[in-house]
Amino acid sequence: MTRFELNILGCGSATTSLQHLPSCQVLNIRDNLFMIDCGEGAQLEMRRMKLKFSRLNHIFISHLHGDHCFGLPGLLSTLALLGKTGSVTLHIFEEGAEQFKRLMDYFCRDMSYELRFHIIEPRKAVIYEDNGITVTTFPLRHRIPAVGFLFAEKPKLRHINPEAVLRHEVPQHYMNNLRQGKDYVTPGGLVIPNSELTTDADPAISYAYCSDTMLSKRVINAVRGVDWLYHEATYGDECAVQARKRYHSTARDAATVARDAGVKQLIIGHFSNRYIDNEPLLLQAQEVFPATTLAHEGLVLDLNE
Amino acid sequence: MTRFELNILGCGSATTSLQHLPSCQVLNIRDNLFMIDCGEGAQLEMRRMKLKFSRLNHIFISHLHGDHCFGLPGLLSTLALLGKTGSVTLHIFEEGAEQFKRLMDYFCRDMSYELRFHIIEPRKAVIYEDNGITVTTFPLRHRIPAVGFLFAEKPKLRHINPEAVLRHEVPQHYMNNLRQGKDYVTPGGLVIPNSELTTDADPAISYAYCSDTMLSKRVINAVRGVDWLYHEATYGDECAVQARKRYHSTARDAATVARDAGVKQLIIGHFSNRYIDNEPLLLQAQEVFPATTLAHEGLVLDLNE
Repeated sequence: MTRFELNILGCGSATTSLQHLPSCQVLNIRDNLFMIDCGEGAQLEMRRMKLKFSRLNHIFISHLHGDHCFGLPGLLSTLALLGKTGSVTLHIFEEGAEQFKRLMDYFCRDMSYELRFHIIEPRKAVIYEDNGITVTTFPLRHRIPAVGFLFAEKPKLRHINPEAVLRHEVPQHYMNNLRQGKDYVTPGGLVIPNSELTTDADPAISYAYCSDTMLSKRVINAVRGVDWLYHEATYGDECAVQARKRYHSTARDAATVARDAGVKQLIIGHFSNRYIDNEPLLLQAQEVFPATTLAHEGLVLDLNE
Repeated sequence: MTRFELNILGCGSATTSLQHLPSCQVLNIRDNLFMIDCGEGAQLEMRRMKLKFSRLNHIFISHLHGDHCFGLPGLLSTLALLGKTGSVTLHIFEEGAEQFKRLMDYFCRDMSYELRFHIIEPRKAVIYEDNGITVTTFPLRHRIPAVGFLFAEKPKLRHINPEAVLRHEVPQHYMNNLRQGKDYVTPGGLVIPNSELTTDADPAISYAYCSDTMLSKRVINAVRGVDWLYHEATYGDECAVQARKRYHSTARDAATVARDAGVKQLIIGHFSNRYIDNEPLLLQAQEVFPATTLAHEGLVLDLNE
């Protein structure tokens, strides 16, 4: 299994509270850290959760509300103070890039690393790709332009069956072909089907992040069939009208998205500061979608499970 | 006694640590809150210390390093979300005003209160005055322009001695004159000295904030004779060379300023994140100036004492 771990650094909403920090999470995929949103206090929470600054090279900002990005100046400065090398890419809407570039140019003149700005747009697009994963944006439905992020592992390689390979005398240089699913043809012309020489690859994991958004068909379609869905659940049932008015979701809305999109697991967060206890929100969501988990600061989820 | 209380919200230095938050403190003077510096996390610490956002109308920024002002966007936005009315004045260098004005104009379009920018300069000047206090800037010696702030209560009114006033039949309308120290002349022409009719006023308290700065004659002169001095003490003796190189102070430097300026009490803060325990810094300072206190997050000091 390759590492695919979700760390919740903040799952509160706009108004500060002592219960939750503003939005921030970090995906650890094969020891590369991908931050999603960066509310105030993100850098401190990274320390608290022992997430290594040196492993962070990509930050994805869903939209330009302060509770999703006011942790950037502090975090980006700290990376420079710590002498981070290489680059950090900030995937962000254009106006956010302008704002934070101007701020960092003034406040952080001695950058030890290259700060790159990658302009994203509120539409469906692959915005990042490496050997193991792709990251795709998709539009959310909020008061201002906002995107969700879909992190999807690429199909993984099949596992070699060492005994079978030895028995059929497959040469070493052919192993990668086997991992990719090819059959083996012996020097005598005999075809050994791949299924006799390998076992199934580990499943490719997918994770979608949706905050902030109201209940939307478009979002349901975008996250169809993902393994894990993080969806905002700012309010409970009693605030359903307010949720719609403010382009936010209730816990029940989040669960509806999870159910209608056929995801495997739902995590809810972005809780309004009116709730001291988020358990009622969990119960409301579970009425619609039982496999729901409450986010909380410090939560680490192994998404392979 | 009028309330004059110092709240320490953050007393760490530039690099984040789990021991300390970046610079921020709040003076509570007669239930008006004056914030000095605003490091990341200031708004959360205000909540933790139960300091009322509605009572905050003035924020003073000593210099434009991120660990002294990156809490501003979050705090100023939260004040708007909470529907604060009236005004908040940010006393700040010109380039800081430009940066934060631009940021707030973009991120916080629905301001419920008036955000005022008062440009300060790195020189001695009275920058604020009300019935009870004055706030004076004075230049520090740091890598970039920086000022200290001197909060000084104006001389207070004398206390009426009710029995003496009754005995000498002083009319009610003359009481304010007595409080201001005037003698009373009876209708028969007899002069009753003020000292027979009143007792001494409470002492006027003064508090000076010096962070960030290296040891400097200029600073010693500026804080001469204050009751309470907060002075940065980023390093211990073993880093004296580094302290000078970076325009910072050691704990011993801070104590030297306190001793040479003849202040009554010293508080040290702005500790480097290399120290898990600040006790050795306290001991080094106390060798020079015994009346030294270590700052820590959550510390509340009654400056009347």
